[in-house]
Amino acid sequence: MNSISVKTGRPYEIRIEKGLLTGTGALMKPLFEGRRLAVVSDSRVAPLYLRSLLDSLAAAGFEPPATFTVPEGEESKSLKMASVLYDFLAEHRIRRSDCLIALGGGVVGDLTGFVASTYCRGMCFVQVPTTLLAQIDSSVGGKTAVNLAAGKNMVGTFWQPSLVVCDPDTLNTLPEDIFAAGVAEAIKYGMIRDERLFALLEGGDARGHIDEVISRCVQIKRDIVQHDERDTGERMLLNFGHTLGHGVESDSRYALSHGFSVAIGMNMIVKASAARGITDPSVQARLEAACHRCGLPTSYDGDLERVLSLCRGDKKSEAGGLRAILLRRLGEGYIQPFTFEEFEAFVREGLA
Amino acid sequence: MNSISVKTGRPYEIRIEKGLLTGTGALMKPLFEGRRLAVVSDSRVAPLYLRSLLDSLAAAGFEPPATFTVPEGEESKSLKMASVLYDFLAEHRIRRSDCLIALGGGVVGDLTGFVASTYCRGMCFVQVPTTLLAQIDSSVGGKTAVNLAAGKNMVGTFWQPSLVVCDPDTLNTLPEDIFAAGVAEAIKYGMIRDERLFALLEGGDARGHIDEVISRCVQIKRDIVQHDERDTGERMLLNFGHTLGHGVESDSRYALSHGFSVAIGMNMIVKASAARGITDPSVQARLEAACHRCGLPTSYDGDLERVLSLCRGDKKSEAGGLRAILLRRLGEGYIQPFTFEEFEAFVREGLA
Repeated sequence: MNSISVKTGRPYEIRIEKGLLTGTGALMKPLFEGRRLAVVSDSRVAPLYLRSLLDSLAAAGFEPPATFTVPEGEESKSLKMASVLYDFLAEHRIRRSDCLIALGGGVVGDLTGFVASTYCRGMCFVQVPTTLLAQIDSSVGGKTAVNLAAGKNMVGTFWQPSLVVCDPDTLNTLPEDIFAAGVAEAIKYGMIRDERLFALLEGGDARGHIDEVISRCVQIKRDIVQHDERDTGERMLLNFGHTLGHGVESDSRYALSHGFSVAIGMNMIVKASAARGITDPSVQARLEAACHRCGLPTSYDGDLERVLSLCRGDKKSEAGGLRAILLRRLGEGYIQPFTFEEFEAFVREGLA
Repeated sequence: MNSISVKTGRPYEIRIEKGLLTGTGALMKPLFEGRRLAVVSDSRVAPLYLRSLLDSLAAAGFEPPATFTVPEGEESKSLKMASVLYDFLAEHRIRRSDCLIALGGGVVGDLTGFVASTYCRGMCFVQVPTTLLAQIDSSVGGKTAVNLAAGKNMVGTFWQPSLVVCDPDTLNTLPEDIFAAGVAEAIKYGMIRDERLFALLEGGDARGHIDEVISRCVQIKRDIVQHDERDTGERMLLNFGHTLGHGVESDSRYALSHGFSVAIGMNMIVKASAARGITDPSVQARLEAACHRCGLPTSYDGDLERVLSLCRGDKKSEAGGLRAILLRRLGEGYIQPFTFEEFEAFVREGLA
């Protein structure tokens, strides 16, 4: 089993192994023996994997957990759903010394993490991510969130899980477009930090190298998060492709998934910075080709001015400006501060 | 000016002085110059003090803040109100680098703190408490919360303010019963840690010694919180009278205020522990007399069994039991673990 330690304020382990879902109970036993558990999942994942998880918990001697299933999809990542979940936990007399388990993708993980961080002012939770995006990104690093009408992830906390149980076999049931959306974030890690990872992905066969892809991505994110848990410096690197990506995602009214939007955002910012002579033109070409081979879009049909205007409202923008992530060479991202006007001119002219 | 430093994860100052409300802008300037502000207040406090606060911020060069006023009362400490406030902040393009100001009592402070700790995953906030309870208790120590139908403060975070501006003059407009509710918490501090403070209060003239009362209470809470920011050990001492108090408060369907319920809870637990020979009988008598002189109730008409059953669901109870705060002598509280059955027998028999 591949085990990656995360040394944040509260340290924890990320375990990665095919078939590991059935070992969740055994992994949790030393941490939570005698505590009560509640499982949160969604309508797509629960029919596939909830039974295995519950069996593994029972085998490890845990009482049958309360289980809460939300409808699949981004709509469930809301304050309203958090509110229903809080009431569910109170009704089942879950206490702050008990533990939640998030079984599912980013929506389930972010919602569960948010509720865990705020129910009774904070309780433990375990991530069992079942999408590629959740395994390599959202389950690592302790960001939790729900969405507002005004924007995604506008409400949330920094709250580390106690354990992450990552079973690549759960990706076998993942629809191709949801898998591809995860590959977009894997490409991002390659672009900002790891040319070899990028090379592994640009052939278009991420599934063929899935263990290595997950491990490398998790290690990169772990290294960055350990240096900057609360996202005030280096962690901004992980935002590569995300400022424009969030604008595109929001402008599409979430018709485009997060991963697809990030793929578009990466291509836009690299095209703009190549036009200014910052990024080597070969990088732009390789990124575009890699995205195509992985089933990812590289450009957006919508109105650029609307997208740029949405960037001003991005959660990470500051008074008067924002920090964009650029790169000169593959694997070497860096943070570049812009005023809004500079950033808009940079993108507008670069894409003209 | 009395300035008390709180050395939690993020350190901050508590400033206490008559008339200080009008100095808020000057105190905030070195911390937040150039940032945008939003003020949260309630329908009782805003007509009294919002103008002074806004003038002081304008005089210090801040842009006019967005202001959000909630209806007075516990009903406003809800997820629903938090949700409206999040939307308000997003609509006014408040960013995570900006700052919220809570002008009001515990409801406003707890709600604002909760929203500050979760909006954009955490932003700064300043407490300007205008009730005695908020000045000596809820504004100090970084607990934030909203209520669930299942119980008060069931959702919240630990999130320290950047500054607390405490103006005892704002207590001059406080209705007597709300002032008395704050005195109950002051009596609590005396009981667990400071016989001299208790002696100051038992004459029934807290207003006549208000500066000293506030300073002593804040210092006691500061000392305890610094040792145990996340409430896993010593901070439990502050829960004196609260386990039964919460039960009473909840059983009365919040017809009894928090302070009145705590006064009842303190009298109940002291009576029970005096009956067991733990607490000196003179302490019981002095507590009861002090409460009467300060306009506080000392007993509850409702059904004791219902109250005890509510204690089992208390947020701080654990699997199978709870920790109650007892004392042998005035000023010397200690933590006593009980199983639920033991605790119920202890109270039931002590009050029989």
